[in-house]
Amino acid sequence: MPPTKAPDSSRRSDRSRRAIHDAALALVAEVGYRRTTIEGIAARAGVGKQTIYRWWPSKAAVLMDAFLDLAGRTAEEAGAGSGAGEEPSGAARSDGAARPGEGAPGLPDTGDLAADLKAVLRATVDELNDPVLDAVTRALTAEGIVDAKVGDEFVRKLLDPQLALYVTRLRAAQEAGHVRADVDPRIALELLVGPLMHRWLLRTLPLTHAYADAVVDCAVGGLAPRP
Amino acid sequence: MPPTKAPDSSRRSDRSRRAIHDAALALVAEVGYRRTTIEGIAARAGVGKQTIYRWWPSKAAVLMDAFLDLAGRTAEEAGAGSGAGEEPSGAARSDGAARPGEGAPGLPDTGDLAADLKAVLRATVDELNDPVLDAVTRALTAEGIVDAKVGDEFVRKLLDPQLALYVTRLRAAQEAGHVRADVDPRIALELLVGPLMHRWLLRTLPLTHAYADAVVDCAVGGLAPRP
Repeated sequence: MPPTKAPDSSRRSDRSRRAIHDAALALVAEVGYRRTTIEGIAARAGVGKQTIYRWWPSKAAVLMDAFLDLAGRTAEEAGAGSGAGEEPSGAARSDGAARPGEGAPGLPDTGDLAADLKAVLRATVDELNDPVLDAVTRALTAEGIVDAKVGDEFVRKLLDPQLALYVTRLRAAQEAGHVRADVDPRIALELLVGPLMHRWLLRTLPLTHAYADAVVDCAVGGLAPRP
Repeated sequence: MPPTKAPDSSRRSDRSRRAIHDAALALVAEVGYRRTTIEGIAARAGVGKQTIYRWWPSKAAVLMDAFLDLAGRTAEEAGAGSGAGEEPSGAARSDGAARPGEGAPGLPDTGDLAADLKAVLRATVDELNDPVLDAVTRALTAEGIVDAKVGDEFVRKLLDPQLALYVTRLRAAQEAGHVRADVDPRIALELLVGPLMHRWLLRTLPLTHAYADAVVDCAVGGLAPRP
């Protein structure tokens, strides 16, 4: 739809950026990471490829920004629809390809660790089950698995900032006496994040809210009976 | 090395099979799953492609058998070298691409659940850190992540039989009173398997025996302090 007044250059840039993001995501979902090219993205977005090279140094960089943009939009929509789910969804995804930590408010801390973790993991389940995010996240994750350089970039820029939010929340729980002092938060978080990722990536069984809850209950309470 | 007497047809078949397995694994590790073809495997193995089609219905089927063969050999070598590690290594890998369950003796059951799980997860860590297995497993896992049909085949034929061994061991632990009765073993096992897979696939941090031990301690003891 044409704008009612001529856009200024910044708005034109925003429109081009969004078109490039959308083209990059559509291509990755359709043909996979490897067969997606800067030329293909430019053609689909209706821009010159020099425009893309001016803004991004590499295909991986375009895709990372496009992915962040998409994840941000998905989280916003989820937040707008649910209210209660807004904070965890906007704050973190606990899978392998998370949203950026900048400006993130951190994981919820109501004082009830299990309830807070369930809210976060349920929101993550919703995002992983979103069909658009699913295709893109799978394509990028699969490439990172076989190409250590791509994998490293995604982990350092996208995943690690998210995992740091779990460390912060688990440390607060330790200080509050809700997590054992001898637990390493950086390892404990993998008992929450790892199972979801395993089930989602390998499609072993359905990824549901009930599953998220059960993982949290197992992780917090442990397998061994209380004495 | 030439055999001292003329091989019979069964031995010739075995040699061809092994050559086809080796060629398939080498190609997948070098060029990835998608660019590996039946023609390429046949050329590298020095057999006609009709030989491959006679024995296997698809590329995925060749690769699955080749992978099982490799995993079996790796486990045998590990077992021959370590003794104590033999049973868990031969019995199960707890990652996403496990050895077949046929004839598997099950997970060790010494009555000490944590010690048994540590032995199994340590053996899994060793296998995942094996450079040959690493390349092949990554290639197959990455393809399964983007291609649901390939993923499903690997999960049903390779992974599920392994996960069933964990269910059996955890059920025995429940009967012995070492695992809470309200824990679902099918979910509990993902707190053991998921973290290893997550760390290995995404290469977030080193995959070590100490990590395997810490995951078991967290999962068995839980995060919450004992009352």
